[in-house]
Amino acid sequence: MNEKMNLTMLTDFYEITMANGYFKSGMAEDIAYFDMFFRKIPEDGGFAIMAGLEQVIEYLDNLRFSEEDIEYLRGKGIFCEEFLDYLRNFEFVCDVWGIPEGTPIFPGEPLVTVRGPVMQAQFVETMILLLINHQSLIATKANRIVRAAKGRPVMEFGTRRAHGTAAAIYGARAAYIGGCAGTACTIADSMYGIVALGTMAHSWVQMFPDEYEAFKAYAEIYPDNCVLLVDTYNVLKSGVPAAIRVFKEMKPAKMGIRIDSGDVTYLTKKARKMLDDAGFKDCTIVISNSLDEYIIRDVILEGACIDSFGVGERLITAKSEPVFGGVYKLSALEKDGKMIPKIKISENVEKITNPGFKTVYRLYDNDTHKAIADVITLDSEEIPSGKEYEIFDPQNVWKRKKISNFYAENLRKQIFAGGKRVYESPSIDEIKSYCKEQVDALWEEMLRFENPHKYYVDLSKELWQLKHDLIEKHMNIKK
Amino acid sequence: MNEKMNLTMLTDFYEITMANGYFKSGMAEDIAYFDMFFRKIPEDGGFAIMAGLEQVIEYLDNLRFSEEDIEYLRGKGIFCEEFLDYLRNFEFVCDVWGIPEGTPIFPGEPLVTVRGPVMQAQFVETMILLLINHQSLIATKANRIVRAAKGRPVMEFGTRRAHGTAAAIYGARAAYIGGCAGTACTIADSMYGIVALGTMAHSWVQMFPDEYEAFKAYAEIYPDNCVLLVDTYNVLKSGVPAAIRVFKEMKPAKMGIRIDSGDVTYLTKKARKMLDDAGFKDCTIVISNSLDEYIIRDVILEGACIDSFGVGERLITAKSEPVFGGVYKLSALEKDGKMIPKIKISENVEKITNPGFKTVYRLYDNDTHKAIADVITLDSEEIPSGKEYEIFDPQNVWKRKKISNFYAENLRKQIFAGGKRVYESPSIDEIKSYCKEQVDALWEEMLRFENPHKYYVDLSKELWQLKHDLIEKHMNIKK
Repeated sequence: MNEKMNLTMLTDFYEITMANGYFKSGMAEDIAYFDMFFRKIPEDGGFAIMAGLEQVIEYLDNLRFSEEDIEYLRGKGIFCEEFLDYLRNFEFVCDVWGIPEGTPIFPGEPLVTVRGPVMQAQFVETMILLLINHQSLIATKANRIVRAAKGRPVMEFGTRRAHGTAAAIYGARAAYIGGCAGTACTIADSMYGIVALGTMAHSWVQMFPDEYEAFKAYAEIYPDNCVLLVDTYNVLKSGVPAAIRVFKEMKPAKMGIRIDSGDVTYLTKKARKMLDDAGFKDCTIVISNSLDEYIIRDVILEGACIDSFGVGERLITAKSEPVFGGVYKLSALEKDGKMIPKIKISENVEKITNPGFKTVYRLYDNDTHKAIADVITLDSEEIPSGKEYEIFDPQNVWKRKKISNFYAENLRKQIFAGGKRVYESPSIDEIKSYCKEQVDALWEEMLRFENPHKYYVDLSKELWQLKHDLIEKHMNIKK
Repeated sequence: MNEKMNLTMLTDFYEITMANGYFKSGMAEDIAYFDMFFRKIPEDGGFAIMAGLEQVIEYLDNLRFSEEDIEYLRGKGIFCEEFLDYLRNFEFVCDVWGIPEGTPIFPGEPLVTVRGPVMQAQFVETMILLLINHQSLIATKANRIVRAAKGRPVMEFGTRRAHGTAAAIYGARAAYIGGCAGTACTIADSMYGIVALGTMAHSWVQMFPDEYEAFKAYAEIYPDNCVLLVDTYNVLKSGVPAAIRVFKEMKPAKMGIRIDSGDVTYLTKKARKMLDDAGFKDCTIVISNSLDEYIIRDVILEGACIDSFGVGERLITAKSEPVFGGVYKLSALEKDGKMIPKIKISENVEKITNPGFKTVYRLYDNDTHKAIADVITLDSEEIPSGKEYEIFDPQNVWKRKKISNFYAENLRKQIFAGGKRVYESPSIDEIKSYCKEQVDALWEEMLRFENPHKYYVDLSKELWQLKHDLIEKHMNIKK
């Protein structure tokens, strides 16, 4: 676990059987386009948050098959030597486009597109899905929780309940992108500069004869940030009084109490009064007990006196819906330099894919700078700002809307060109700020947890026509 | 992500503030005992499955602070140089006991106990919880799913929906321990020998002019294991007929079809008949569409014709309950060579901890070899096999039971002695077999998904008395 880990083999086995299959069928160098997209916003929210692209880039930049990998594959007895040679000399040559991290994203939008020899473009499916699915899930959840906290800082406290080490580290990263103020996860701080905080566990208190002694020892050592855990025995009868005594005696520069159990609303109101009466109006109250966006919303509505939240298992596992269902689908081929769009037909209309090489524009109102709609277009199209533009509902094509007072921004960036990285990720703080800006550009009605307004994600006329023609063609073949 | 990763800093920040605190308070070398245990079986099941211990061992074996770690910590400006020196020369000296992987486990049982200098024994909390919580969660879920499949192989197919890379790899490992037959995750095969399988995606079929061409190409390359994905267009109208045509023409040694969408019961019954009528009674049918233990139980009850299952997101995320709530609590101190048991009192009776240095015995019936009860005892106690023994319900002490025709096994092993590893983990296949044996030793009534029989996990008289005395003492202090 601590060794140098080459993650090239972290892939579904079928990616390798298919790659070898394409190789042996003489199709290895056929150029294919694959889109990664998702179909449903977790918890029926109004939007999701894109995250994980930086880790995709690292992965693609480091793709290589070691001799051990080759040996392992040879041992399977189903791969030809020419194919193994190809892997030994593997060089990533694909083009990749993606939506930057922190962007609000919607079902059907091509979050990542990979163009290249089919055996390469197919091979990277598993990790692109794994990395984007995970971090987008957590960034989306974190953003919900942070919005519920109405400006109060939310700390990510879930390391111990994360699904393994990477879930802890990259979950903390995604939570920060989604708006968390910091984390308990030290390595996320040392790797990404996401400020790590934390003071004491119940065991610290238990190690001393009583709470007063435990708090006093702590205040002596950490006078600049003295947050005392007051619920080891009894919050109001012993924890808060002991904290107040220590604050009076030691006068730490920054004072706080943390409550990790019990009735949050009742306890924080009482504790606040006790602290205020003792003259510690600046003492902050931190809460950290099985929180999520719903509980945070409710306790704030109930008038709980809380300055910040520590959110653990329900954030780091996205407990209420722990799956972000991104998929990776073939959208086009190139044959003799000509683009052949591909579609996957399904009885379920929402599962029919969008064909061709595409991009996504976001249209903003010139006056309010609010996002009006997204439009998925063919990559070759442009949406000129200002000109009247008609948008379609992708499933209900009779729903149309003309807009004019807008500007259009292409949401996607090219990430790799011919296998070479051509994109530098912004810093984590830039990503976080960008996320906040972009969420602020959404209409308030989209921010609701229940029944949010459904944002328009339309297809350009050209893309709609192409999709329609391909469906017709497919139906005619079936007749 | 691909670099050599030292996970020593993957810890909650408060472990470090506390360690430095103990150091400065002159308590660093005080000997403490910490227990890891959990309070609730996921999904109100009858038992959970222990997993992740091997990764805990690897972690403890590799604990070391690099110069970069020290630099990072110094930059925080709150840690003293003597403490940083201590970390620079850190050597793990604790004793560790644990329950072997694959064992059915119950709330309150000390799964892992760490004894040593408090600053070390406290420090390792985060990773012990993280690793055991994650793998036990997935092993428990996998075991439920495998039991639902009634002997049909279950493959772990969730890599793309796992919460990051470690969740994919160690999730596959835990799923195998819980009873899965294999995985789609290639690296789990190359690392652990968990057989990785997989054939084709829909995109393979789409790359060819039609299903027949796609299947034929595949059968040519993989005649020894030819599982064809038949739901790209229409299972019964085109997929299965094309597969049958290819089976007839190519006569692969092993034939199968996979269905990844639609009404499983209906489609598999129809497909089975078509395959049988064509003479392919040996052709297997694999299903892989948003499955879990409930759906698998239902489709089997409905008479679906399925030979094996591929289970993805609902297994790898334990979707229905994605949190295994293990905690890590102080249970004793040693002062001047004398053991001082510690208890954490709570208003919530179930949250009161078990004090002292403990172990767990499992009592088996001499005749049936079924597990009768577990007894948590002080480590110094022994339960002599065969002698009449009285067990107590830990919460309802009037519930007592005398047993005699039994043998007792201590479930725990010593893992580290003075910081040195003294335990060799069994192979993954041995762990898996052991898990199956141990689950088979449970009464059938405990295997139900709804309202399983509640297994007795009792306290020895001595432990019960100790706990009782400490609670009394605490209550008297409060008066």
